[in-house]
Formats: sequence, structure tokens, C-alpha cells
Amino acid sequence: MGLNKNTKILIVGLGLMGGSYAQALTDRGFEVGALARREASINYALEHGLIRHGRCNADPDYICQFDLIVFALYPHVFLDWLRENQDCIRPGALLTDVTGVKGSVVYAVQDMLRSDLEFIGAHPMAGREVSGVENATKEIFRGANYIVTPTGKNSEAAIAACMDLGRELGFQTITTLTPEKHDEMIAFLSQLTHCIAVSLMVSKDSEHLSRYTGDSFRDLTRIAKINDEMWSELFLLNKTELLAQMDLFSETFSRLRDSIARDDTAAMREMMRLSTQRRKYFDKDESV
Amino acid sequence: MGLNKNTKILIVGLGLMGGSYAQALTDRGFEVGALARREASINYALEHGLIRHGRCNADPDYICQFDLIVFALYPHVFLDWLRENQDCIRPGALLTDVTGVKGSVVYAVQDMLRSDLEFIGAHPMAGREVSGVENATKEIFRGANYIVTPTGKNSEAAIAACMDLGRELGFQTITTLTPEKHDEMIAFLSQLTHCIAVSLMVSKDSEHLSRYTGDSFRDLTRIAKINDEMWSELFLLNKTELLAQMDLFSETFSRLRDSIARDDTAAMREMMRLSTQRRKYFDKDESV
Repeated sequence: MGLNKNTKILIVGLGLMGGSYAQALTDRGFEVGALARREASINYALEHGLIRHGRCNADPDYICQFDLIVFALYPHVFLDWLRENQDCIRPGALLTDVTGVKGSVVYAVQDMLRSDLEFIGAHPMAGREVSGVENATKEIFRGANYIVTPTGKNSEAAIAACMDLGRELGFQTITTLTPEKHDEMIAFLSQLTHCIAVSLMVSKDSEHLSRYTGDSFRDLTRIAKINDEMWSELFLLNKTELLAQMDLFSETFSRLRDSIARDDTAAMREMMRLSTQRRKYFDKDESV
Repeated sequence: MGLNKNTKILIVGLGLMGGSYAQALTDRGFEVGALARREASINYALEHGLIRHGRCNADPDYICQFDLIVFALYPHVFLDWLRENQDCIRPGALLTDVTGVKGSVVYAVQDMLRSDLEFIGAHPMAGREVSGVENATKEIFRGANYIVTPTGKNSEAAIAACMDLGRELGFQTITTLTPEKHDEMIAFLSQLTHCIAVSLMVSKDSEHLSRYTGDSFRDLTRIAKINDEMWSELFLLNKTELLAQMDLFSETFSRLRDSIARDDTAAMREMMRLSTQRRKYFDKDESV
């Protein structure tokens, strides 16, 4: 169960994230294999040294070699895959994932899993505005956060191995959270911000404005280029938390709006001072 | 009226923006003087070679030397200054400013100005999250936009001189807009984004979340460190436009919220695809 240099690692799903995992782990000396739908993805990963070997179909003789399996799939594909193929996995293997929501995934997987396998959820908080293995790079993990989300079903050994994995991948900060705390946090910090960016871009056709824009609009909308298939699924899988955070934001935004509408400079300035003070928490790793 | 290397330039107000103007113009070979409230600001600017000379009081014999005067003051301070001191200005001098809103400033200034002076508004779309002459640097103008906002009262010569000024400062893109178009644009691209960033930070005490955050939250809240005195004044000076843009954003945000609430994946994905497509307009100058 522990992670060591003899641990054979299978990446299931060779997109941006799966490919970046493969590159990081191969570069750290692990034997890394992969399963992908498209043969072109396997070929690309072989040619660029991301993996040692790979398959386009779920070959039982291939799957059973691996000690650690990382699922880098859309959530619904992940569950379907396990249902069909978990019988092929070597007893004692450790399974983990990269899914951006946890509560609706972790328990479902643990409930359906064979008793001689262990699944522990993890969320690599890294990404790019582009997708596909061709854009994979381990550089996205540098300085980023990796969150392990154990439940009561997880062993200490699995938690330790999953945190080791985060270190091998090159993440800067590796922490644990319950699936519930994770989802609350991600709804506010990530899903809400994507909703805001999308809403800003959808609000008006701003093509004619692009020549006038300053950095702030670019910064706020960088994440407005969004994988609609993945994010719509993630939003619905965390719907209750996301709606709660959206409503919290809307209330604050309305409060600021109303202070402007009634010329209430004192109320506006108080919100701005609180905002300025709180934003400093996030400064430590930033160059000015 | 035209800008040439003999044009003597006075900066009124030596904060971040005034200091950055002074540095850029001094480095381009102009004779630059300054008026500031604090003697320490003048001393700093002299010691660091930002200006050739300066004063802490509005000395008429000093003010009357200059051909071009740039006002880098808060809007209400700007109007007060002109009321008290415009009699000292040399006939034929050109006046411009750096104010972030235009409709409520440009006409007021032009209406009160002596008939032998000319004022033309300009908005340098550049800045930092820090203030004061000690943080001044002409680097903030590199790659940035400079917008001249002429009215029917402005001469072609003044428009040309003001655009020349933008070039001498080192801006990348120099354009003209009516004050009204400018204010509509700035309400959406800049003021609304600052309202969003402030609302995000005020919505919850996120100190405990800073260790989990990815780039998106950092990007969206970088401008949440905000000069509350300046921005509250700018918001109220552009209140009608800003409220209209805030309401437009709120409507779109509510539409996205409702599509999530009713599990309407098609509606969500349509908004995300539109967002992705529109964001590409803003890509040209960005590294991925």
C-alpha cells in the first residue's frame, strides 16, 4: 500500500491532468502505464516519454499489474469504468482520483468497491485553460495545492501513500479535508469564481471593448474559457453547496449595489476596507 | 499647444500615478515639475530623479511657467484646485488629467475653465494595488491602454497633443472615446470587476481557505485590495452607468444560478460555450 519506487502506477484517462500526472511520475522514476480511449493519446504519451506503456482497451491482464491506479476521468465515466472493470484490479491495490468534487464521488466509489481494494479521493488544484494530453505538463503542479479527502473507511497507510503521491507530483502544499469541507471550500473558491467569470463574459458582447480593457477584466475572466462538459457535470455534483455560495455572493453584491444607489460612502468604504484587509491573507506567495 | 521637447510639464499631485507620469516624462527628456501636498513626496521625487523641481504650495510664479499641466488628483480635489488656482496658469496652456471617470468631470472642468485655456480628459488604464509616489514606476504603462476623451470644445491640436502624451508615457494602445462611451465601458470593464472582487472577499472570512486556493480565486480578487477613498468617489461619479452594469451582471448570474438549480445542463453549457468563445477576443496579448 505504501508508495515506493517499485510501485507500478496506472493512469486511467490521458487528458491534460492524466498526462501531467504521467509526466511527473515517470520523471520521478516510477513505471507508469496508461489507459486511454484514443490511440493517438497513447501514442503521443509514448513518443513524449510520459508513459512506459499503455492500452486503448481495458485489458484485464494489463490492469492487474498495477499497485496504484489514478483515475483522471469525468466523474460519471469513472463510476462506470469501476463497475465494469474492478474485477481485474490486483487485490490490495490503492485507487485514487483527480475529481474536482468529492462528497458525491468518494462515498459512491467506496460503497461499490471490492473489499480488498481501497479508494482514497484527492483533488489536485491545478489546471490550464486548454485540455488534452498534448497540453500536459507537470509544471502545473508547481506551487499548487493538493488535497486528500479521506473518510472513515480509509486506512492511515492509504492516507500516507496518497499524500506521498502529492509530494512526488511536485505539489507545494499537501493537506487533508473531509469530502464535505472540501466541497464547501471548492464551491466558494473555485466553482463560484468560474460562475462569475462566465456570467461576466455572457453579460455582453465585449469584443469591441477588448482594446480598452485593463488587467482587472482579463484577470477576472481568464477562467471564462471553460470545459463546458466537465464543469457542468461538476456544478451539478456539488449543486447544494454551489447554490449556497452563489446566494451568499449575490447577497453581498446586492448590499454593495444598494450602498452605491443610496450614496452611502461610509458603507462602501467599510466593505472596501474589509476586502483589502482580507485579501492580504492570499498575498504571501504573490509577487506584487 | 503641440507637444515637443521644450514643453514644460507640471504634474499636480504626486501619488502613484503622478509619480509614474513624472518618471516616464523625465526619462523622455521633458522638464517636469510637480506640486504635492507633502514635502516628503517632493523630496522623494527629487532624490529619485522623477522631477527637476517641485513645490508644496500653489505658488503662482511657479505654476505660470508650464505649458502642459497634468492633474493626478482625486476628482473633487481637482475641481477645487482649479477654482482656486486657474488664474495663475499661463494663457494657452493645455490641461489634462488621469481621472478614472469622465462624464462627470470633463464637462464640469471645461465649463468652469478660463476661455484661454484648454482641458482635454484622458484615462491611463494602468495602476497597482499599492499607492504613493514611493511605488511610482513608468513600467505600469507598458502594454497598457490610454484613452483620450475629447468633447466638442476640444481642438484638433489638443487631441493630437494629448495622444502624443500617451505615446511619450509609453502606452501601447492610444484611442479616443466620448466621455459617455468611456464611462459605459469603464463601468463594465473596471468598476463592475472591482465590485465583484470586493463582494467576493466580503462574502466570507476566507483566511482559513487561503492554503487551499487555486489561481482562479487569487486572480479574481487581486483587485480586492482597493483604495477605498478613491474608488468610492469614482463609483458615485459614475453611479448610473455602474448600477446598470451591476444589474446586467446580476441578471446573467441569476440565469446561470437558475440553470444549475433546475439541472439544466444544456442551458449551462450554452452559457459556458458563449463565455469561452467571447473570452478569446481578449487573448491576443496573453501568454497561455
